[in-house]
Amino acid sequence: MRNLLITIRYDGRRYRGFQVQAKGVPTVAAAFQDAEEAVFGRRDPIKGCSRTDSGVHANRFCLSLQTESRIPTDRVVPALNVNLPPDIAAIGCREVPPDFHARYSAAGKRYLYKIWNDPVRNPFWEGFALHVPHALDADRLHRMAQNFLGTHDFSGFSNAGGSAANPVRTITEFAVSREEELLVFSVTGNGFLYNMVRILAGTLLDAARGGIREEELPEILASKDRSRAGITAPACGLYLDEVFYPCLTGGGLDPAPVRHP
Amino acid sequence: MRNLLITIRYDGRRYRGFQVQAKGVPTVAAAFQDAEEAVFGRRDPIKGCSRTDSGVHANRFCLSLQTESRIPTDRVVPALNVNLPPDIAAIGCREVPPDFHARYSAAGKRYLYKIWNDPVRNPFWEGFALHVPHALDADRLHRMAQNFLGTHDFSGFSNAGGSAANPVRTITEFAVSREEELLVFSVTGNGFLYNMVRILAGTLLDAARGGIREEELPEILASKDRSRAGITAPACGLYLDEVFYPCLTGGGLDPAPVRHP
Repeated sequence: MRNLLITIRYDGRRYRGFQVQAKGVPTVAAAFQDAEEAVFGRRDPIKGCSRTDSGVHANRFCLSLQTESRIPTDRVVPALNVNLPPDIAAIGCREVPPDFHARYSAAGKRYLYKIWNDPVRNPFWEGFALHVPHALDADRLHRMAQNFLGTHDFSGFSNAGGSAANPVRTITEFAVSREEELLVFSVTGNGFLYNMVRILAGTLLDAARGGIREEELPEILASKDRSRAGITAPACGLYLDEVFYPCLTGGGLDPAPVRHP
Repeated sequence: MRNLLITIRYDGRRYRGFQVQAKGVPTVAAAFQDAEEAVFGRRDPIKGCSRTDSGVHANRFCLSLQTESRIPTDRVVPALNVNLPPDIAAIGCREVPPDFHARYSAAGKRYLYKIWNDPVRNPFWEGFALHVPHALDADRLHRMAQNFLGTHDFSGFSNAGGSAANPVRTITEFAVSREEELLVFSVTGNGFLYNMVRILAGTLLDAARGGIREEELPEILASKDRSRAGITAPACGLYLDEVFYPCLTGGGLDPAPVRHP
């Protein structure tokens, strides 16, 4: 019995998130399990590093599964790719210790939130970035984002529907950068509450327009009041970018760079 | 009566090319004319700079139309964008002399051909670049591409179905560059025969694998024999990038940079 850590990349537009739902609902996990069955001979349970919402993308999503199959580890990626749909690709596979679990072994994750910031929308970013027509100041957004660094009770930055018992999370990095019209928020933390990255992004976008004042941000965070934070930014701009596994030598991730999409 | 030069950008995946075809066939021109009717009050004839094939994309496609409508020129882009589908965007509009014609006034065009060059396919480039799994040497491809510079009879690099009476064209630039896994061919010329850019790309890809020897390229060009050139590379990688109008002050194009998608 081997325990395998498999990394996949997916365009989430067509899926109702990662997690398997009722039969017939398109999910990334269901599509993966069809390929898994073809490659490993059976649908063994898979453990995803995270749920992702409808329409959310992943540059490097990790899942683990235990298999009796004898397929060599280095043949898994090409074999899966023959069987996965075009909007999902396997990009890495390695054997991990028996007690490794893609979700519980993760020490942290990085998400990206992408914004096409130009008066005119871009057909090539449709479904892959939020279109914001008014000019955004990346340096100012970056400065405002630093208010969220550190360990906080993020109750005010979570929507109903999450399952976390403890709302305290630590954000270790929150960078806002621009490359021409593309604005990217990069947020790294030890974990995120339900919709937390999208509400953080929405709050900064509200603050950029003046709907929320910059000085209020620490107070809004401390209030733990969802109604004081900003909108939940749409799913299309969100990418699970990387999952961190310090228990694995070398970090356990395939460092394949991903531009876009 | 004003003559307007309108620049559009489109994701061509859903369309059977630019040119209007039979009723019900999805074409970029038909979608544009629906928006035109909403904005200008009627479907005046539009002159496209080029036909593009099914699945071909455009960073900056130009079309001209004459209109009696009084809508201010600077309101045309936002008005069109409200009425165009998400995979087509108007990105520029300017008034041009009455005798300007988007096709006949063009002195040249630049096309890009994009290749995702990595053993593993990338879901985010699906439909937007050709996937080539074996390693390509951009410098070698660039050197080979220089064989096509200059004025030649390109009969051997054209498929049946074109309408050009004269097969002589001049290529002024043919660059191959790499940015990480993305390989881009950039070809500029005074005009292109039917499928010419895709056959040039396919011939270089054949030469990269050794199916065609590098030394043979001048001979294949001189032979004017389609069967000696390479495959027609798939439409998904092709982008009409820019159209050149020296008759217009400043070149007449919106220099908006386009990454990708």
